[in-house]
Amino acid sequence: MASNKPSTPKGMRDFTPEQMAKRNYIFDNIKNVFKKYGFVQIETPCVENLDTLTGKYGDEGDKLIFKILNSGNYLSEFKTDEELIEVKNQGEGAFTKKISEKALRYDLTVPFARFVVQHRNEIQLPFRRFQIQPVWRADRPQKGRYREFFQCDADIVGSESLLNETDLMNIFNDVFSTLGLHSFVVKINNRKILEGLAEIVGMSQDFVGFTIVLDKLDKIGEEKVKLELLEKGASKEGLEKIFDLFKIDNQSELLEKLNTILSNNETGKLGITEVSQLFDYMQVAGINMSKFELDISLARGLNYYTGCIFEVKISDLEFGSIAAGGRYDNLCGLFGMDGISGVGISFGADRIYDVMELKGLFPLTVTDRPQIMFVNFGEEEMKYCLSIATELRNAGVSTEIYPDTAKLKKQMQYANDRNIPVVCIVGKDEVTAQTVTLKKMETGEQSTVKRKDLVRSIVN
Amino acid sequence: MASNKPSTPKGMRDFTPEQMAKRNYIFDNIKNVFKKYGFVQIETPCVENLDTLTGKYGDEGDKLIFKILNSGNYLSEFKTDEELIEVKNQGEGAFTKKISEKALRYDLTVPFARFVVQHRNEIQLPFRRFQIQPVWRADRPQKGRYREFFQCDADIVGSESLLNETDLMNIFNDVFSTLGLHSFVVKINNRKILEGLAEIVGMSQDFVGFTIVLDKLDKIGEEKVKLELLEKGASKEGLEKIFDLFKIDNQSELLEKLNTILSNNETGKLGITEVSQLFDYMQVAGINMSKFELDISLARGLNYYTGCIFEVKISDLEFGSIAAGGRYDNLCGLFGMDGISGVGISFGADRIYDVMELKGLFPLTVTDRPQIMFVNFGEEEMKYCLSIATELRNAGVSTEIYPDTAKLKKQMQYANDRNIPVVCIVGKDEVTAQTVTLKKMETGEQSTVKRKDLVRSIVN
Repeated sequence: MASNKPSTPKGMRDFTPEQMAKRNYIFDNIKNVFKKYGFVQIETPCVENLDTLTGKYGDEGDKLIFKILNSGNYLSEFKTDEELIEVKNQGEGAFTKKISEKALRYDLTVPFARFVVQHRNEIQLPFRRFQIQPVWRADRPQKGRYREFFQCDADIVGSESLLNETDLMNIFNDVFSTLGLHSFVVKINNRKILEGLAEIVGMSQDFVGFTIVLDKLDKIGEEKVKLELLEKGASKEGLEKIFDLFKIDNQSELLEKLNTILSNNETGKLGITEVSQLFDYMQVAGINMSKFELDISLARGLNYYTGCIFEVKISDLEFGSIAAGGRYDNLCGLFGMDGISGVGISFGADRIYDVMELKGLFPLTVTDRPQIMFVNFGEEEMKYCLSIATELRNAGVSTEIYPDTAKLKKQMQYANDRNIPVVCIVGKDEVTAQTVTLKKMETGEQSTVKRKDLVRSIVN
Repeated sequence: MASNKPSTPKGMRDFTPEQMAKRNYIFDNIKNVFKKYGFVQIETPCVENLDTLTGKYGDEGDKLIFKILNSGNYLSEFKTDEELIEVKNQGEGAFTKKISEKALRYDLTVPFARFVVQHRNEIQLPFRRFQIQPVWRADRPQKGRYREFFQCDADIVGSESLLNETDLMNIFNDVFSTLGLHSFVVKINNRKILEGLAEIVGMSQDFVGFTIVLDKLDKIGEEKVKLELLEKGASKEGLEKIFDLFKIDNQSELLEKLNTILSNNETGKLGITEVSQLFDYMQVAGINMSKFELDISLARGLNYYTGCIFEVKISDLEFGSIAAGGRYDNLCGLFGMDGISGVGISFGADRIYDVMELKGLFPLTVTDRPQIMFVNFGEEEMKYCLSIATELRNAGVSTEIYPDTAKLKKQMQYANDRNIPVVCIVGKDEVTAQTVTLKKMETGEQSTVKRKDLVRSIVN
């Protein structure tokens, strides 16, 4: 085994110091925006009880959950060989139930709903929480899709006000502006409008089926979506009507037509009212409206959404969505606590990273290098440097002493490779004169500074 | 299932916003100190290939690793029912190999060694990395011991210089001083000194056995340790000799006696030299030496240590160790890359949290509350507040508007429960006069501020 080349599991990644500096830049910016809007951080364990997760993501989702093997004598669950064979013959699902009762979380939303119910007596409603943690899915890994990836979620539960949606749209705007990702576009829709459209095509009885097919519009195109909907029982006339709507670009024209077409559909009209009010609030809050558009073909795959839904894309790159969210009226009901409406958004940190890397948006100041390195010429010089290093560190300067008495060339190469901006050279002469020689690595410029002036010269 | 009270898995925890604020205070302080010493951050996936982890923590450790069930048709590994029964009869170990090839990491050190080998061409040696992530152990949960807990590790690989140990001792000192945990004590020993002591008691052939028993001194006491060592073949005279040494408090007296007793043991003498040089460097670096003591009974359970070892305790609390570490000469050799010596330390964030909570050491400023909340009296007033909130947030002020038009009492109760320091009250009068009424929650003091002066009055 010792000679095997070690590796990370498929679809899971190490992050090098350079990558970490960039990732932290994204996380810190998102965190600061969340905090500006009064959101507070929680964390939940990476591992949840399996029954907390199963049944929440559909059958396909359940298969993608990573299950954890019970520890200890887990085979003792099978009393006899016959039982073992019998359960095996029932298939993986039944077998897994016998030997696994825990799993890695699949997203942050279901654990959050579990958190709210479990801690109902410790938190104040409305509760605005943010959470930045990894999630795991046993998806087939491919470009931009990982088996371990990070979500950055902000949710408000315990309030039905559209002011919450407004805050979340503000957060989209603030986060992407701060990151310099100015080509973002937020698509907004409302599941109640979609319910109205489902009625028009005669699919009210199969609303979930309607949204699942519609959600594929981006991937498979209009013709195939129409065919699939027809197969599911949609009317041809109804489909023509709603696909005509999808082609309207002008927002007020679209709202007007929607109002006419849904004039007899209470749910649909409520959806229109919610979207209009949200746009009104956003205008009052001073948001740059050109980044936000009503897109009534936006469906979002998840069934628990009941009101406004959102999706953020990059307008000048083919890249899938980099953030998304929506309102869910009864997620906590899954854990026995009804009547708690919530709304939330989730940033896909890994995709945002990839987009920013592609576009060269990370500032040069995002770096992991120390500010200064002392060259090591030997025991006596090193000790002189050591006491100076303490002073620098106490002044908050990130400082390194090259630990070994290696050749100068090797030490300078190390400083260069790590992009350390200033190297401090101390030989016997400097020790005697109580000075140091500073070398600026970018220009090669050298200067001699008195020992007692060094901290001041670096900190200023 | 909907009526089940949901919960976290045994030994794993949620962190509430208040706990997160305190945990982040610890993490941020540790991170800042790591950075001051030139350490750069990496992260590794929570999930590792099982063969990366097995065989590194001893048989007991292997049992405590949480294994992940292969996804998909994992039962198809068994071609026949007979094979299934056969593997089952070989026991859990054999069965697990068939159905699991991944696991949750057990610590940060082995994944770091794997990282160094895998990324050898991307990193510069000496490589100083820090890493703050959760680890998992299927231990029996008890007070202060969790199944998911966080480690904060700093390691330097690729350098044998004791300057690295000196930096790490400085880091212990800086971290605990910054956190206000002034009653910390760092115990230092060297595995080479222990090798010398093993020779004295005649246990050179079973050095690992010697250290494992000695490591229990704190838990089971002198008499039982002596008995266990005698059973393992230690000589009675040798034991008396070394236990006499353990009783010497005076450091220079101890070093002197050690030098005499180990005068014929090259390895032991090298250990003494290393420890003496480390203490010398620490003095030069200006460390408060009263916090550090040579404790030659300190053994550390892990077998991969080869040089200096450390353990940090709280002198005025019975609490086990809150940080520890040591030098390992060949950890990367486990993955086929020999000759890379390393030294590292690990802070136990959860125990540090518990100690700081017990001692009331978290500053009152460590909090998760927003700075200001607007009361919501209705649509018109709310919109007036919304545009002001945008200005405050743009100025970096954490701001919340109560999202619903609830009773004033309920809104004030919410602000009070969340410890929000300033509440902004806006009724029709304020809208007309273009003012706001500010209420300081601690004193109850109210004042009226012009709308245009609000941001300045809050930010200053």
